[in-house]
Amino acid sequence: MTYLLLTSYAGNLFSSTNMYLRPQNHHTATCSSFGSHSSPIFTSYKKKLKGPTTVFATATLASREVGTSQNSNGYISKPKKVMVIGGDGYCGWPTSLHLSNKNYEVAIVDNLVRRLFDHQLGLDSLTPISSIQNRIHQWHSLTGKTMQLYIGNICDFEFLSEAFKSFEPDAVVHFGEQRSAPYSMIDRSRAVFTQHNNVIGTLNVLFAIKEFCEECHLVKLGTMGEYGTPNIDIEEGYITITHNGRTDTLLYPKQASSFYHLSKVHDSHNIAFTCKAWGLRATDLNQGVVYGVRTEETALHEELCNRFDYDGVFGTALNRFCVQAAVGHPLTVYGKGGQTRGYLDIRDTVQCVELAIANPAKHGEFRIFNQFTEQFSINELARLVTKAGEKLGLEVEAMSVPNPRVEAEEHYYNAKHTKLIDLGLKPHLLSDSLLDSLLNFAIQFRDRVDHSQIMPNILTNCIRVKKLGLDALLRS
Amino acid sequence: MTYLLLTSYAGNLFSSTNMYLRPQNHHTATCSSFGSHSSPIFTSYKKKLKGPTTVFATATLASREVGTSQNSNGYISKPKKVMVIGGDGYCGWPTSLHLSNKNYEVAIVDNLVRRLFDHQLGLDSLTPISSIQNRIHQWHSLTGKTMQLYIGNICDFEFLSEAFKSFEPDAVVHFGEQRSAPYSMIDRSRAVFTQHNNVIGTLNVLFAIKEFCEECHLVKLGTMGEYGTPNIDIEEGYITITHNGRTDTLLYPKQASSFYHLSKVHDSHNIAFTCKAWGLRATDLNQGVVYGVRTEETALHEELCNRFDYDGVFGTALNRFCVQAAVGHPLTVYGKGGQTRGYLDIRDTVQCVELAIANPAKHGEFRIFNQFTEQFSINELARLVTKAGEKLGLEVEAMSVPNPRVEAEEHYYNAKHTKLIDLGLKPHLLSDSLLDSLLNFAIQFRDRVDHSQIMPNILTNCIRVKKLGLDALLRS
Repeated sequence: MTYLLLTSYAGNLFSSTNMYLRPQNHHTATCSSFGSHSSPIFTSYKKKLKGPTTVFATATLASREVGTSQNSNGYISKPKKVMVIGGDGYCGWPTSLHLSNKNYEVAIVDNLVRRLFDHQLGLDSLTPISSIQNRIHQWHSLTGKTMQLYIGNICDFEFLSEAFKSFEPDAVVHFGEQRSAPYSMIDRSRAVFTQHNNVIGTLNVLFAIKEFCEECHLVKLGTMGEYGTPNIDIEEGYITITHNGRTDTLLYPKQASSFYHLSKVHDSHNIAFTCKAWGLRATDLNQGVVYGVRTEETALHEELCNRFDYDGVFGTALNRFCVQAAVGHPLTVYGKGGQTRGYLDIRDTVQCVELAIANPAKHGEFRIFNQFTEQFSINELARLVTKAGEKLGLEVEAMSVPNPRVEAEEHYYNAKHTKLIDLGLKPHLLSDSLLDSLLNFAIQFRDRVDHSQIMPNILTNCIRVKKLGLDALLRS
Repeated sequence: MTYLLLTSYAGNLFSSTNMYLRPQNHHTATCSSFGSHSSPIFTSYKKKLKGPTTVFATATLASREVGTSQNSNGYISKPKKVMVIGGDGYCGWPTSLHLSNKNYEVAIVDNLVRRLFDHQLGLDSLTPISSIQNRIHQWHSLTGKTMQLYIGNICDFEFLSEAFKSFEPDAVVHFGEQRSAPYSMIDRSRAVFTQHNNVIGTLNVLFAIKEFCEECHLVKLGTMGEYGTPNIDIEEGYITITHNGRTDTLLYPKQASSFYHLSKVHDSHNIAFTCKAWGLRATDLNQGVVYGVRTEETALHEELCNRFDYDGVFGTALNRFCVQAAVGHPLTVYGKGGQTRGYLDIRDTVQCVELAIANPAKHGEFRIFNQFTEQFSINELARLVTKAGEKLGLEVEAMSVPNPRVEAEEHYYNAKHTKLIDLGLKPHLLSDSLLDSLLNFAIQFRDRVDHSQIMPNILTNCIRVKKLGLDALLRS
């Protein structure tokens, strides 16, 4: 299951160990040694593992102190070093930048397999994105801040162990999972890959924390999709049930609707157990659908630009609609369009993760936050994009396409989301002006749009929903 | 993760395809070709796969008809061909015999990895057990009934596909999982093995049913341990929750307490999804702790004898206590002994599985039955064994040992179990006489007892329960 184990490097760095690591195209990266240089800031070195080769750079971070925090439980902590697993991805990269900007020491762990998926499926980000090495180098050039980089697969415990022992994180943010529901439904091998990669990778992270840094706080990205669409209010992770005269508070029952969403349900159960059994501390961020692309940090330079997916596999609904509006393609509403979900701006993703890190869970505590700011149905989103498009002189229309997903298209939906607000989240709401800027962004890059990616064509060969099963689902 | 992929055979059979497969010791089995024989009963042939080599025998089963059944939902079905995955194991073997005795055509699918675990951990069944090949051959000699045998790993989809295409089952009984909680807690690699093996194996079974025989009814062995010990009554799989004035019926919230139990929780979620999404039909048997060893069929001949585990890894509580009483070892009560669970006689396991097969779920239906007949605490079991032992002239005492498991030792427990009774289950309850026979059985084989297996020594190097986590657990 090891997809990419690149020999790589942390930017165009000078080394104090007689080694210069030449910038490489990430498709063909190899490691070369060229001679001796030195730098007062960077210490770059190569570490040979028995398994994959890992190369990374450490740096003397400008010694501004990360704020000591006292969380709502009175737990005093000073998280300083944060490992971001999946730090090259759509949420992981801006989060890494944001944490670095907030003076956390950041190490990115990533096997870059998300970039491989693009090659395999013939997809591409709307925005041109730099290699992770150039991204890190550019960030350093602009701010003087550095990030460590560990290239490897967390399903390989030997690699993960070395990364933990080397970096000694105070917190781990875990974005490092296959994160597309449609991808997990393409065929058996991708369903199995998704569950293996996500469940075993997370198990390895839990064992690494237990073995190497039990104080470490795990901040794990879950998804609101774990809950499904129950006919009762969705609480934040737990529900108190009174039944036959007795009462208990239990994990909220889950009804995931793809092998991807199911993998996150499995993760949540595994994490809950290790918090109970080993006293680990973890926060599960059940994230809604993320939209947007710019954050304060990614906007600093084009080499820091985040990826922006608009295809039928990795593109999220609002992002897809904005691209469709920008190029004059009808908005593709799946089925009846009554599907309601929680949404959030990517600037709130990075804010929420930082709030969770700054206010860690206690030992033995498994905290679950619903991480979104507003609820919309697909039809409501389509109407908002249509209206915003008209203001910009775009002719926007919506079309219904057969729903490739297994989901109810009309349903009750009311999900609680107060815990992150209580910790200080200041939401960026989807006002017209925000939508304008997202649309303008799509317009800016519309020459790069590949029209063949807009429709969910990739799903043509997918496991089709059986009518019988779908009917049962719609009634549920 | 492929542990054993033996070239093997279905007994000492004559072949109509110029091939004679010599009886082999299962540790060293290889495939040999000796010449031409023929038989009016058997057709034995070898099928080469790209992956593991599988050899099996088909037979013209005496044409007694399997009873046509009409289940409680009015669904008329004639399940005839049953694939038993894990058919060489403690529950799988007597179930295979029972189904064969009831005139189902049975195919056993097993990679025999359970036998490998014994070698690796230095354990052995109290009872001498024959190779699966000799078991099947002996059953044929006694009854004229045959079973097909597919040796291979269900995590290998190519192998599983060939087995499905060849046998075309009407029902699949899935015992083929790593089934010990302590085993899954020994170390990281066994935790990962357990979750990978169980979750991916079950995913493959679901995909095989979808691809090759959508009519096929999956009967999956779950465990009562998925529920944990909530402070409210445990229902059969689903619970109706009224919350903030609205009501829904959802999967019962799970609180599993080992990586093994968690793997079954993951399976249940995956199966529930495929019933909804693809219209598969499945029955999840949340089985209690099984005790006993003899069934009507295994008692017919010593070569049919079932395995009997009494060690700290695979031995279940009551079986272990009976062996301890037989050899004069104190009964090893883990912790306070207030742990209460559902129990059932192995004769009821085979009865329940047959009831589930004869009364299949409807398409799109995910049925969950709690498969046990009585509840006991560990202390109650120890008292029952002490009392039964005294009647047989044994001096029995109990001792408390540190609990190697992550579990509450005093708790509320009331689990419903009426659905199998409604289908016709006639329970064998744990009366004194039944306990006597189990004790007498242990006495019969006490010369084979390895005293080093009695204590949970194997767990010495296990992942220890952190006090902090345990305290949190005990409060829950």
